[in-house]
Amino acid sequence: MLSLDGRGPLYLQAYAAVRRAILAGHFAAGERLPSTRALAVELGVSRTVTLKAFEQLGAEGYLIGEKGSGTYVTEALPDGPILAARPRFNQSAIAVEPRFSRGGLRIIAQGPLVEHPRARNLPYDFEYGFAPPEPTSRKAWRRLLARAAKSGDLDYAPPQGSDRLRAALVQHLERNRGIRCHADQIVVLNGSQQGLDLCARILLDPGDHVLIEDPHYQGARAVLLAAGARLVPVPVDEDGLDVLAARRIRSRPRLAYVTPSHQFPTGAVMPLARRMALLDWAADRGAFIIEDDYDGEFRYQGRPLEAVQALDGRGRTIYVGTLSKVMFPALRLGYVVLPESLVPAFRAGKWLADRHSASLEQEALALFMESGLYEQHLRRMRRRHESRRATLVEAIDHHLGARVTVMGTDAGIHLVLWLHGVQPTELGRVIARAEEHGVGLYSIAPYFLNPPTCAGLLLGYGALDESEIQEGIARWAEVFVG
Amino acid sequence: MLSLDGRGPLYLQAYAAVRRAILAGHFAAGERLPSTRALAVELGVSRTVTLKAFEQLGAEGYLIGEKGSGTYVTEALPDGPILAARPRFNQSAIAVEPRFSRGGLRIIAQGPLVEHPRARNLPYDFEYGFAPPEPTSRKAWRRLLARAAKSGDLDYAPPQGSDRLRAALVQHLERNRGIRCHADQIVVLNGSQQGLDLCARILLDPGDHVLIEDPHYQGARAVLLAAGARLVPVPVDEDGLDVLAARRIRSRPRLAYVTPSHQFPTGAVMPLARRMALLDWAADRGAFIIEDDYDGEFRYQGRPLEAVQALDGRGRTIYVGTLSKVMFPALRLGYVVLPESLVPAFRAGKWLADRHSASLEQEALALFMESGLYEQHLRRMRRRHESRRATLVEAIDHHLGARVTVMGTDAGIHLVLWLHGVQPTELGRVIARAEEHGVGLYSIAPYFLNPPTCAGLLLGYGALDESEIQEGIARWAEVFVG
Repeated sequence: MLSLDGRGPLYLQAYAAVRRAILAGHFAAGERLPSTRALAVELGVSRTVTLKAFEQLGAEGYLIGEKGSGTYVTEALPDGPILAARPRFNQSAIAVEPRFSRGGLRIIAQGPLVEHPRARNLPYDFEYGFAPPEPTSRKAWRRLLARAAKSGDLDYAPPQGSDRLRAALVQHLERNRGIRCHADQIVVLNGSQQGLDLCARILLDPGDHVLIEDPHYQGARAVLLAAGARLVPVPVDEDGLDVLAARRIRSRPRLAYVTPSHQFPTGAVMPLARRMALLDWAADRGAFIIEDDYDGEFRYQGRPLEAVQALDGRGRTIYVGTLSKVMFPALRLGYVVLPESLVPAFRAGKWLADRHSASLEQEALALFMESGLYEQHLRRMRRRHESRRATLVEAIDHHLGARVTVMGTDAGIHLVLWLHGVQPTELGRVIARAEEHGVGLYSIAPYFLNPPTCAGLLLGYGALDESEIQEGIARWAEVFVG
Repeated sequence: MLSLDGRGPLYLQAYAAVRRAILAGHFAAGERLPSTRALAVELGVSRTVTLKAFEQLGAEGYLIGEKGSGTYVTEALPDGPILAARPRFNQSAIAVEPRFSRGGLRIIAQGPLVEHPRARNLPYDFEYGFAPPEPTSRKAWRRLLARAAKSGDLDYAPPQGSDRLRAALVQHLERNRGIRCHADQIVVLNGSQQGLDLCARILLDPGDHVLIEDPHYQGARAVLLAAGARLVPVPVDEDGLDVLAARRIRSRPRLAYVTPSHQFPTGAVMPLARRMALLDWAADRGAFIIEDDYDGEFRYQGRPLEAVQALDGRGRTIYVGTLSKVMFPALRLGYVVLPESLVPAFRAGKWLADRHSASLEQEALALFMESGLYEQHLRRMRRRHESRRATLVEAIDHHLGARVTVMGTDAGIHLVLWLHGVQPTELGRVIARAEEHGVGLYSIAPYFLNPPTCAGLLLGYGALDESEIQEGIARWAEVFVG
């Protein structure tokens, strides 16, 4: 009945064999076991081996030895073959329908977002996303990360993040985003997503209204819905969120989620006057503004407009920054700049969520910023993106001309293309035909709560070089314009 | 009125000076500005400089030029000195009392936990916590992290974590913890704290009952309270959680939080029979067990007892693992092994919380595990801790003898000392006197919901070497025993 599985030392094999037999109910609770001698014969091992196996099983509570009368399976085991049906992956033995919390059910409802998109493997893929850093920057990063790993503190760290990194961020934010803040207002997080999540947890009760630009980043929508928020979509025009439309809304939103530096996904830049009006609106309503500055560093015309946070004298703005665009997403570092009234809550929330962000990568990033490498890298990325942007705009103009309207070219690493004479319902076919010719296109529709009446595409250009951009647009134009 | 601040290019200084004046209300909305020529004279710069500054201010929407009639401050600016009182750290200008959510208020209530303890800087500090890895391991880690930084994927990754790391964890868990699971049941997280937080979010509604060992890890208590749970403390004896006492509780807890491999902080190891009874209890009540296996790898007598998860044929156990003890806390990596019924919820929850954990450190850890370095490191740590433990137990026995009872020495990197003839109210004085002699001691009381009737200390020995341990106990005994 017993057999060894041939893995590891003999006594552990014997131990495992007997244990399996007990758990499968072949030896019942209270049953007397064969002697170590008999078992040794059955298993073809020495008695030393079975003695040692019994000793271990005794120590773990499976067996009880009674002097002179042999060894018994402990009575405390439940009767019957408790684990007889134990499959390879034991947890699926009996399907349990868990009782989820209301919050858990809302989280599950956001599940589809989580599915990592399949790689399309197209030669000309205009997917919005990641622009890999140049080899020089990557090499420098590697060096600094190794340095941090050599000498960095390996113990738990404070929830707000590395002092050194926060000091470097203060400098960076003043220089690049016009933000004047104290390091104490900063909490380092795992990317901007964690910032949005903490905002929702700390400031939203289920049923609360949240003003959201329409269209918008789906990760923000999902996290707000998971918090039980009622979304109040406000349309976006060429100047970003329509603040007048927001003013007409009679409910009292607790939060407004905005992307003023480069509206995601339309690319609109919110002018100063509207930023001021937005701040007034927030002060009037007692709402907080979440300013998601996801690509505020990539602006090609003039100096970047300073952040809404920099204009706010009334402590209504939560600035959410990320390193995913300038550095890389796998880093999982971002941060919030908070009104002082929110600092204790965010520190506590971060501690409870995961105590603090990974220290060595924070340390390496601080070194990267202090040494000026970050600024160098940023300039290099900006130049690269700007050249790609110019190429893309030119190629669109040349090949597609009057068939399309281009939006959102001032900043970022994507733009929006509105297709004339194409119904939203026909867009799927346009995308499929482009795919047949090796060109990856993406509808803007999924970013809307209220579907747009025109057919629009979101074209990312961060991951394609100039010749790929030209060739991609040329190929697509051939089938689209005909 | 205007003045340059001497930082950066002249035109930017001029730009900033005018902008400040506008925002402070010195130039009102609609007001005509002095000519670029007049301003150049006032600021002592060339007219090219002021022209360039005006151009920038125009691009940003502060100024409007009207042909032939000069330049005006935009009408869209709110009237009056909107930012006149803008201080150095602008957000504190007007103290706003935010309206927090109910969840936010509960998070804030956990705030005191967040305060990073002051470093006591004592030569013999028995603080529970971090045991730094040996230089060999640290060097190997650095090398693998650099390798990951060289070739690892820098883009967003799936929420469940690296396939490679999860495969390595499956092997590790089977070998060291008796757990047989599929990689799909694992979600990689930022330490065990995030595992507890996700359990609370996904499974608890405010008001739900949660069974918790008393005493227990405060981070678990805090995260459960932040979720609005009603804690049901169950006493711990020398076999860990008293399952019979749990059975007598008539409420229906949704969760039970337990540390069976080395109860935190008493150090009790839960025997097999109780593990079985606990699983039965969970199945009866429809509750999930959170098995926090925070130092399950450090066991000194016999093979480690297999995890509760490994005995569970009914999918009621959420196994929470951490790399903070075997590797180091700053890594911020941990994981959960889930019943299949909970996998989609945890993946979605992780995505919403922060999309995924840092990729390069996951990659380095996978390399560390695959190469056998992890096992080597673990053996080294175990040997080191075991020797320290033996030294500590011996020193206590020698110096304190019958004055104390020692508990929890089978595993982990701490033990518990119950002091005879000392009232809990007198413990503060004992600790203060020890501190005067350079010895750091810590009361066990903060880990209890229901304060203990005896005076107990939690002695961590991970960070002290043998001679420090001996000397520390000897010194303390001198003042304690007298």
